[in-house]
Amino acid sequence: MPVTRVGNLAFISGQISPAVEGAKPSSRLGAELSVEQGQAAAAGAALAVLAQIDRLVEGDVTRVRRVARLGVFVAATPDFTQQSLVGNGASDLVVAVLGEAGRHARAAVGVASLPRGAAVEVEAIVELED
Amino acid sequence: MPVTRVGNLAFISGQISPAVEGAKPSSRLGAELSVEQGQAAAAGAALAVLAQIDRLVEGDVTRVRRVARLGVFVAATPDFTQQSLVGNGASDLVVAVLGEAGRHARAAVGVASLPRGAAVEVEAIVELED
Amino acid sequence: MPVTRVGNLAFISGQISPAVEGAKPSSRLGAELSVEQGQAAAAGAALAVLAQIDRLVEGDVTRVRRVARLGVFVAATPDFTQQSLVGNGASDLVVAVLGEAGRHARAAVGVASLPRGAAVEVEAIVELED
Repeated sequence: MPVTRVGNLAFISGQISPAVEGAKPSSRLGAELSVEQGQAAAAGAALAVLAQIDRLVEGDVTRVRRVARLGVFVAATPDFTQQSLVGNGASDLVVAVLGEAGRHARAAVGVASLPRGAAVEVEAIVELED
Repeated sequence: MPVTRVGNLAFISGQISPAVEGAKPSSRLGAELSVEQGQAAAAGAALAVLAQIDRLVEGDVTRVRRVARLGVFVAATPDFTQQSLVGNGASDLVVAVLGEAGRHARAAVGVASLPRGAAVEVEAIVELED
Repeated sequence: MPVTRVGNLAFISGQISPAVEGAKPSSRLGAELSVEQGQAAAAGAALAVLAQIDRLVEGDVTRVRRVARLGVFVAATPDFTQQSLVGNGASDLVVAVLGEAGRHARAAVGVASLPRGAAVEVEAIVELED
C-alpha cells in the first residue's frame, strides 16, 4: 500500500526517484552521479511522496498539519559525504509546496542500492488535520 | 527492548533473518544470494516481527488494527535492483497472517551489511485496538 | 528542522557522530574503525539526540515518557556483522541518561556512507508527557 492511516498520522511508503537522464540504473552518488543530479532525483522522489499526500487529502493540502519526518535514502559510494545536500532536493520541494507545514525532521543516509537502481528513495510520516 | 508502546502505537525493533541454508553469513543479494533466498530470509525476519506482535497482543491478533509501516533492509550489492521483490517475502507473510490489518506502508532499501551478517532486517510500527 | 512535534510524539532528525580521533572522514566499521571507536561514535551521535530532546523539554527530562524508537545507521563494510554492538554505544547512553524512559525499540543497520563521512547517525521518536 502506498499510504496507511493511524489516527491523524499517515505513513507514506518509500517512493523512488525516476530515471536520471543520461545515467544508467544503479548509478550512484560519489561515482556516476553529480550532487545536482542527486538533488533532482531527490526532488523527483519527493514529488511522488507529495502526490500520495495530495491524493490522501483529496487535493486539499491545507489538511496537512505537519510533515513529521522524511526518510531519505541515497544510493552512494562509501566515500560520498554530501547526503545532506542531496536530501535538500527533497526537503526544499516539500517546504516549497506545503510551506511551514512542510518543515520536517529528517534522516538522510547513503545506502548500497535501491529498487530498480534508483538514485534516491524518500518516505514520509505526515500529520493530518482532524 | 524488542517492543515499545506509545498509546495505540507499538514500535517493533528490527528483527534479523535466520541464517540462509547453504550460504555463509554476510552473503548478499546481487552476489551469493538469489532473489528466492532473499524472499525466504525476508519472510523469516517478518515471522520474528509477527512473533513480537503476537506476544504483545497475548495471542489475540484481532487486537492488531493496522500494520502502519514495515522497514525492510536488504543486504545488497551496489548493482542489485530487486529490493521490492525481496521485501514482498516479508509483506506477503504479514498480510497472510493478519489479513487486511496487515496491509502496510513500506520502505525497502539495499544496505551494506546487517547484524550477524543477516540477509534481511525488518522493523514495524503497528496500531493496536484501544 | 532538528525536531518536529505531533501530539505527544517528537521526531528527532538524524544526528551524526563527531569526527573519530585519529581517523579520516569516511572511515568505516569493518575497515579503519574498531568496534570500540564505533561505539564511541554512536554515543556521540546519541548525545546530540539527547541534546535535542533536552532542548525540547526545556531541560526537564522527566517530561520524556518514553523513547519509542532509535534508528542507528552505521557506516560499514559488506562483511561487518557487529552493528548491534556498535548501536549499544547509543542505546546505553540513552538509558543511562533517561533511565527506564530511555529504553527503546531499535533498528541498527550497516550503510554505505553517511553525511560528512560520519561513522554513525542516530535518529529518534520520543513520547512526551501531556
